Amino acid sequence: MKAAILTIGDEVLIGQVINTNASFISKQLFTIGIPVERVITIPDAERDIIYETRNALASYPIVIATGGLGPTHDDITKKCLAKLFKTKLTLHESTLRKIKASFRRRKIPFSNNNIAQAMMPAGAEIFENKVGSAPGILLKKGKKILFAMPGVPHEMEFVTKNHLIPYLLKHTKNKQNVLLQKTIHTIGIAESVLAKKLGDLNEIVCKGKDYEVKLAFLPSNYEVRLRITVRAKTLTKAKQLIGSAIKIIKKRAGKYVYSTDESAIEKVVGRLLAKKNLTISVAESCTGGLISSKLTNISGSSDYLMEGIVSYSNESKKRLLGVKHQTLKTYGAVSECVAKEMAEGVRNHSRTDIGISTSGIAGPTGAAPGKPVGLVWIGYSDKNVTFAKEFIFTKDRLRNKEIMSKMTLEVLRRKLLGIK
Amino acid sequence: MKAAILTIGDEVLIGQVINTNASFISKQLFTIGIPVERVITIPDAERDIIYETRNALASYPIVIATGGLGPTHDDITKKCLAKLFKTKLTLHESTLRKIKASFRRRKIPFSNNNIAQAMMPAGAEIFENKVGSAPGILLKKGKKILFAMPGVPHEMEFVTKNHLIPYLLKHTKNKQNVLLQKTIHTIGIAESVLAKKLGDLNEIVCKGKDYEVKLAFLPSNYEVRLRITVRAKTLTKAKQLIGSAIKIIKKRAGKYVYSTDESAIEKVVGRLLAKKNLTISVAESCTGGLISSKLTNISGSSDYLMEGIVSYSNESKKRLLGVKHQTLKTYGAVSECVAKEMAEGVRNHSRTDIGISTSGIAGPTGAAPGKPVGLVWIGYSDKNVTFAKEFIFTKDRLRNKEIMSKMTLEVLRRKLLGIK
Repeated sequence: MKAAILTIGDEVLIGQVINTNASFISKQLFTIGIPVERVITIPDAERDIIYETRNALASYPIVIATGGLGPTHDDITKKCLAKLFKTKLTLHESTLRKIKASFRRRKIPFSNNNIAQAMMPAGAEIFENKVGSAPGILLKKGKKILFAMPGVPHEMEFVTKNHLIPYLLKHTKNKQNVLLQKTIHTIGIAESVLAKKLGDLNEIVCKGKDYEVKLAFLPSNYEVRLRITVRAKTLTKAKQLIGSAIKIIKKRAGKYVYSTDESAIEKVVGRLLAKKNLTISVAESCTGGLISSKLTNISGSSDYLMEGIVSYSNESKKRLLGVKHQTLKTYGAVSECVAKEMAEGVRNHSRTDIGISTSGIAGPTGAAPGKPVGLVWIGYSDKNVTFAKEFIFTKDRLRNKEIMSKMTLEVLRRKLLGIK
Repeated sequence: MKAAILTIGDEVLIGQVINTNASFISKQLFTIGIPVERVITIPDAERDIIYETRNALASYPIVIATGGLGPTHDDITKKCLAKLFKTKLTLHESTLRKIKASFRRRKIPFSNNNIAQAMMPAGAEIFENKVGSAPGILLKKGKKILFAMPGVPHEMEFVTKNHLIPYLLKHTKNKQNVLLQKTIHTIGIAESVLAKKLGDLNEIVCKGKDYEVKLAFLPSNYEVRLRITVRAKTLTKAKQLIGSAIKIIKKRAGKYVYSTDESAIEKVVGRLLAKKNLTISVAESCTGGLISSKLTNISGSSDYLMEGIVSYSNESKKRLLGVKHQTLKTYGAVSECVAKEMAEGVRNHSRTDIGISTSGIAGPTGAAPGKPVGLVWIGYSDKNVTFAKEFIFTKDRLRNKEIMSKMTLEVLRRKLLGIK
């Protein structure tokens, strides 16, 4: 049993909006054993919507559509579906009541635009959207299912989690195969070097009569993710196959693996700090607050993160972190010594167990002789040791901020785990 | 002349990778007057790749494919294209030389895996990729064009900008229409309220024999973008149509418009600070460094951003910002008074012209009586005035950090421009 996703909206086709909805739905469907085999993006045009919806329903038992359910004139999905399913749009009373109540609560005058949002194809099953005004809409054609959802990401997420997935779990029988997927996140190693370290892939990738193990390399910005996909008859068998694949990979390239459960590096590091009951502070120059921001993305981070300093000027490096004037003068702000003094300074001032720091050149300008764009010194300090490590990344400012921040957290992770 | 994009890769279909490549290419093609009408995502499977490529070439004169050109076993795009175009893979000497040289430079041993990256469909035109090992590949079938590119985003971007777009500009004749698109970014106003403020849309949206003006509302996380798309015979006419649409929108809802040139709010605010020759410092609690990080995303921000303080603990609010113990005790950390003391404190300590601050509850936990998750006090201080404004956003931590950061920059923008 496979599915297709139809993303409806000019904004996606002209590249203004990135199609995050499709990834979210795909992920959710995959976890319940319904792989998505096509994602098709279509303009807000009646001809295209009807043509591709009809096509998708001809090839797939489950078709999920997002977008075009809003209150404005360019939202035409419902009209198209009514045509395709040979039905009419009728007023859905409980949706109208809900929209009116929400307007009263927000003290916004109810406008006629919003009545259209309560018009639904006759015969459709309607699923309430508690975080917005456009509900989920289910239409059936024989055994085929068409499920339309709003395109606003958090509304689509609500309807998917609370209605689509429970509905599919209840109404589809998908017992032929178990699908499992696991991703191993590595950082600080090139794709081909990693491939070489992993050696003979036939010990990981394999295929039998009723099972299959696939491995994919997904490189991006100095990280490589290894995705293991397993198909098997039973969950036990699938888990066992994934387990042995992970074991081999960890044995051969374990040092570079920071996560096998989709946790971001800030979450991995946060767990380690909490477990070891350690506190941390951050002094950032080139990363400009991104390390602090990543750490504070994790709920509960106030238990270990005490403070962050973005010392963009030399003046603030001296006043807030105690970096010595002489060190800045002799070695320059982007140097091993300054990164060390920053890490030690932020640790001392904030009285935390650990201090980490970055000083580098994010670019695109700012290079100096011997100091190219992309150069960063990452500092670490605890009561026993203070050190700094040098890396050279890209020429792109935003890519540099991202990878420099992640690599700082990776330096911290390896230190916390005693990995050389 | 329209185009289709084929995104090849299981990682996109299972939702692990978000299809940012398609948006990038769509945007680039749109600017040269070639709208994308379909984006189709396909698995790494020969049958699907060949089927959809053949289909797309039947409907569109230009088909762009990304993905599956790498060095590992799951990269099969070239093999499929060779089959479809009834040709063989042959060794492309200059690509091989390039790959070998790159390995020498990086001091990585050359591996046999990498020879496959130099095998190309015979008869294809090859376009050098200077930021990676997989080049762009052009195949022709009559007047139809198939252009395959690597899937790694920055490599795809390089090949698109340096080869695909120049090639299309040179070899396609697309003179029937001029397409222009402009997006107006608003913040802090609901979609339906904005629609009402804009009033009669027929004064903006219109269609004639040889021109058309379309308007789309794109809401997401407390922002609404208004996209104006214009088709016209000449560039002058298109610009004129867009100009009058923008004029009407600005007249009716100008207060909420922060950008009409795709600039992020941090860029808009950065330009204002630079122009007025003002310096700024940031004190963040709930936004955890994200405001500093956004400001430092802009090259040249070191001219006006002096420092950022992430005062996650009450202790650091007192020591680094001079927030009074009594204020914290009486009103709590999330309060008007604390936000004001933070903004004033960071401004005084850093000796900048302006200080801004946030204190709030990002969630999902941390609510208190009268202080729900999503509550934030945004502080502002300059030598004349210090104030704080209250907002209540969502229950989601990451969405809150994002919109709280943007709203802080919006409060700053309105203050800098004297907008009430």
